[in-house]
Amino acid sequence: MAKYKVTFMPHNKAIEVDEGLTLLDTAERAGVHIDSVCGGEGLCGECRVQILSGKVEANTDSIGFLSADEIKSGYVLACQTKIKDNLDVFVPAKGRAEEMKIISEGVPAYSSPARESLHKLPSDPARLFEPLVSKLYLQLPEPTLTDNASDISRVTRELGKKLRYPYFETSLSCLSGLAETLRENDWKVTVTVAKHDGMGRILQIEGGDTSADSYGLAVDVGTTTVVVQLVNLKTGKVVGVEGSHNLQARYGEDVISRMIYACNKGELEPVHKAVIANINNLIQTLSKEKGVDVNHINSIVAAGNTTMSHFLLGLMPCAIRLEPYVPTANIYPQLLASEVGININPHGVMEVLPSVASYIGGDTVAGILACGLADGPEVKCLIDVGTNGEIAIGNNDWIACCSASAGPAFEGGGMRWGMRATKGAIERLAIADGRVTYETIGKAKPRGVCGGGLLDALYELAKNKIIGQDGKFNTSLRDKRLIVENDVPQYILALPEETETGEAITIGEPDISNLIKAKGAMFAALKSLTDYVGMSFEQMGTIYLAGGFGNSLDINKAVAIGLLPDVDRQKIQFIGNSSVMGARMALVSVPAFEASINISKKMTNIELSNYQPFMNEFIAALFLPHTDTKLFPSVKF
Amino acid sequence: MAKYKVTFMPHNKAIEVDEGLTLLDTAERAGVHIDSVCGGEGLCGECRVQILSGKVEANTDSIGFLSADEIKSGYVLACQTKIKDNLDVFVPAKGRAEEMKIISEGVPAYSSPARESLHKLPSDPARLFEPLVSKLYLQLPEPTLTDNASDISRVTRELGKKLRYPYFETSLSCLSGLAETLRENDWKVTVTVAKHDGMGRILQIEGGDTSADSYGLAVDVGTTTVVVQLVNLKTGKVVGVEGSHNLQARYGEDVISRMIYACNKGELEPVHKAVIANINNLIQTLSKEKGVDVNHINSIVAAGNTTMSHFLLGLMPCAIRLEPYVPTANIYPQLLASEVGININPHGVMEVLPSVASYIGGDTVAGILACGLADGPEVKCLIDVGTNGEIAIGNNDWIACCSASAGPAFEGGGMRWGMRATKGAIERLAIADGRVTYETIGKAKPRGVCGGGLLDALYELAKNKIIGQDGKFNTSLRDKRLIVENDVPQYILALPEETETGEAITIGEPDISNLIKAKGAMFAALKSLTDYVGMSFEQMGTIYLAGGFGNSLDINKAVAIGLLPDVDRQKIQFIGNSSVMGARMALVSVPAFEASINISKKMTNIELSNYQPFMNEFIAALFLPHTDTKLFPSVKF
Repeated sequence: MAKYKVTFMPHNKAIEVDEGLTLLDTAERAGVHIDSVCGGEGLCGECRVQILSGKVEANTDSIGFLSADEIKSGYVLACQTKIKDNLDVFVPAKGRAEEMKIISEGVPAYSSPARESLHKLPSDPARLFEPLVSKLYLQLPEPTLTDNASDISRVTRELGKKLRYPYFETSLSCLSGLAETLRENDWKVTVTVAKHDGMGRILQIEGGDTSADSYGLAVDVGTTTVVVQLVNLKTGKVVGVEGSHNLQARYGEDVISRMIYACNKGELEPVHKAVIANINNLIQTLSKEKGVDVNHINSIVAAGNTTMSHFLLGLMPCAIRLEPYVPTANIYPQLLASEVGININPHGVMEVLPSVASYIGGDTVAGILACGLADGPEVKCLIDVGTNGEIAIGNNDWIACCSASAGPAFEGGGMRWGMRATKGAIERLAIADGRVTYETIGKAKPRGVCGGGLLDALYELAKNKIIGQDGKFNTSLRDKRLIVENDVPQYILALPEETETGEAITIGEPDISNLIKAKGAMFAALKSLTDYVGMSFEQMGTIYLAGGFGNSLDINKAVAIGLLPDVDRQKIQFIGNSSVMGARMALVSVPAFEASINISKKMTNIELSNYQPFMNEFIAALFLPHTDTKLFPSVKF
Repeated sequence: MAKYKVTFMPHNKAIEVDEGLTLLDTAERAGVHIDSVCGGEGLCGECRVQILSGKVEANTDSIGFLSADEIKSGYVLACQTKIKDNLDVFVPAKGRAEEMKIISEGVPAYSSPARESLHKLPSDPARLFEPLVSKLYLQLPEPTLTDNASDISRVTRELGKKLRYPYFETSLSCLSGLAETLRENDWKVTVTVAKHDGMGRILQIEGGDTSADSYGLAVDVGTTTVVVQLVNLKTGKVVGVEGSHNLQARYGEDVISRMIYACNKGELEPVHKAVIANINNLIQTLSKEKGVDVNHINSIVAAGNTTMSHFLLGLMPCAIRLEPYVPTANIYPQLLASEVGININPHGVMEVLPSVASYIGGDTVAGILACGLADGPEVKCLIDVGTNGEIAIGNNDWIACCSASAGPAFEGGGMRWGMRATKGAIERLAIADGRVTYETIGKAKPRGVCGGGLLDALYELAKNKIIGQDGKFNTSLRDKRLIVENDVPQYILALPEETETGEAITIGEPDISNLIKAKGAMFAALKSLTDYVGMSFEQMGTIYLAGGFGNSLDINKAVAIGLLPDVDRQKIQFIGNSSVMGARMALVSVPAFEASINISKKMTNIELSNYQPFMNEFIAALFLPHTDTKLFPSVKF
């Protein structure tokens, strides 16, 4: 078979491969990451690259994703293009994953109630800050003939004075070399202890005082996005945060297609390894950026939906997808992070927040923890918008929840110019008198639009009557920004001269349809669950909106497009990524972690897939704001 | 450097080695085991081999171990002899370890009280047979939409009906592949569960019913001898038993010299690996002999003195040896046998019975468990004769104990013709009218003398006034069996024409001196401890004698030589290897295992090394039966 040399620019990485391999696979082998959310099926149009020289064999079925200009300039979809020549390939900025970074330097500026919930959670505030894994410096009394208890007893005796755990579990690894460690360090040691099954689990005993070097990770394993927060466990402060696209997207955009990939092909391993690689890359970046040795990271708390948690742990999720929807586990064992290949201290442990059912996972439990929904008697509501959206309604006594597949639209997935909330993303946007004003993250030249910007765009287009309440463009309008390309009407949000790439950033009718479906699914789920528990929106206390929209969000616009119910705006709080927030709370507070288990046991899942009212609500919600205008009395377009 | 070929006979194993290597090291490299108990220091004379052809460079310092005839026939000590030529070397039967086997096919015929104690131990007899690790066959209900609990919950829910543990601990390894295992096997599985920290620890979940294939091992890690019993955990019956010399003898005869080897040279690893190799070899043999797949062995309970337990686990024992005598741990964590390299089922666990202090170990705790000393209010006594001998006195309320270094004499170690209680060992012996009658194990031609035979010989020589009460030979006697070789007076127990090797089996004055020191140390320890607790021998209930003497022992002779106190013989019971017996009890009974922890916590160790009364008692006991004849009123020589 013929071999060809393919060079990727601007990376300038070359690789020699067999004829017939796709460009996407070639890039992967060369270590060049190209975004793809459909798993190489030619369905998302994310993997466009430009052929600078050489001939290729392109499958033209997916050509609809490319504009005439792009085709003329040599653009192809990497997944639909096979090597048959030596090639020079340019990977456009939008497709390059390595430059993407979540901007926030510390904790994102979430609204205060959610942050305050950290201080409200457990009954005894003094016990609040008690990391799941802590490092304690001990000065042990030297043994004498009258006190010659064993080495490990001396450690646990002293430990018991500082941590009131009923028992300390040891392992062979913490006994190995203990005699020398104690004697070579003058009986001064630092002990790393995890809370485990109600007991203390001794992970490591090091010489001297290393207790200041104590870090943990809060991880949100989202279907579309993976976010890692590095937390100083001495202070509880967030040191840094990094996020990236979930590399599993290569195997399918949503959990269903990834499950099909893993189960039907029997290929669990690559899907598992993809998310581990994600996390390891983010850890590596954070470790370098913040100058924190990975060996000083001793704990991870991860939150994800049930399928993501299974993939994270390398568990086959096949039965999750099929009736009667049974996961392998809802409460996961504490494990060593090294067991799944995560590169932190080899003695470091990982907890995965508990799931409730196949489609209600640890991310929702984390969200409930983060917003304090289960803290008091008042009934509150959490709406977590994600590829799988979840709704929870309840209080400290009961919690009802449901999930709905909203798609990745509000995370920028499956959208022509959608992107995550990272540098260069338009996150706020207004249209007035034919002029578009916007703000980008990091004040950079725009590269795309993240969830917040898309939400604004949807609202502004409707308000300016550029689209109708059905989401269709008013093509009779005379507006230079309203164009039709390949028969697709679209609106220019940023002109070519304004953007990083020199291409116009647009939003087209298919994008708008995706957004309306996403908001419709979320609202339908909310309405169904509210009806199910027999309440009205007015009867509920705070409604928390969570999701990867960006750093801020206009509540009024979210209501106006029909994503949120039309209630007193003071009752609505945007809390950002509540999954990573809840994971961090469990990381720094044993009572919070234990609360997460109790929350998961308290939650009742309402399965919407077999629930006719939901289907009716969904159809009714595919309109701006809704087909039933009485539900949105304050909204006028 | 020159290389030479060395061939070992009768193995016919050849190896090429560098000039200057010792014969002992060469044999080890060739996979030929030569007995050595001093660690290659030229101090034990055990490693004699015969040079059939070729020249050697022999260190003549240790030549005293060889008779003139032996030297003439080319005998050398392998550890004191260096290669400087191509060699043919013959390893005599006595030095060959591989043929040695403990004869007992089932449980040794211990006296009934000890066996009955198995049935007396825990309060509720119904709970008695409850192996530490058990395999349970479960038929799980298939999930439905109304009962869609997770896979692992379905397992633990059903398990909870059979095992009343408060909680079942899982691990990633038992979740991996669980979904497939359940569905491919029609929800019929066998779960292997260990009791761990008061909870159930799920080790493995297999498809179908494999519950009949459930085996465990009881291991006695003695300083001189390692014994492994294979136990069917479905029936509680012993399937087979094997024993061998502790290969650690290569690094020193007693615990002190092995500690010095490991600590001063920093060479813990080979000492650790030696005993692991021992155990693996015995497992391999048992597995083959009994047709039991090693993957069906799921648990091990090991008992050994504190130093042996440390070596077994690969823990540095250095601080045990030095004041204030501090072990790394007394209570050991449950671990996977694979963590220390023991080849059973990779999910199989190992428990090491708890120690009390540096010189009172799990073997003593096992002995107390085996004889039922802690079961009732009557004060009883256990005397465990081993390289490290231990005494325990107490009841269900208190237990005092002490240890004394007796040396390996009663296990056949350090004796000219001593051997373990295996095939060909003289185990019973009588002398009358200048004639010696004896019984050997397996009714084979004699190859040496084991503990029981040595004890008999000591008694018979004294009774026949061939030796005096001071252990010196009455050289003025006219007895053809009384000879002097190399200035060493000795008595012929078996004539050349009777033995397997054609050499006379003798007992010499140094051997007798060793035996008197051993019995003297044991009696002195017993007397010191009895005085310490303020009791007389008469006030105590049963006195249990344990040790590797062989299958039977004459209590009267044991009293007459002054090993045991002169009390009503009905009160004395010989129980054989109580260490492996206690380990087996813990293996088949969780209550027994838990009792062992309580026993260890109840025990008070009296340190004899700093205890002047012991030294006085020891000197007084170096006489047959004792210098104070009032202590042995019924004994007359």
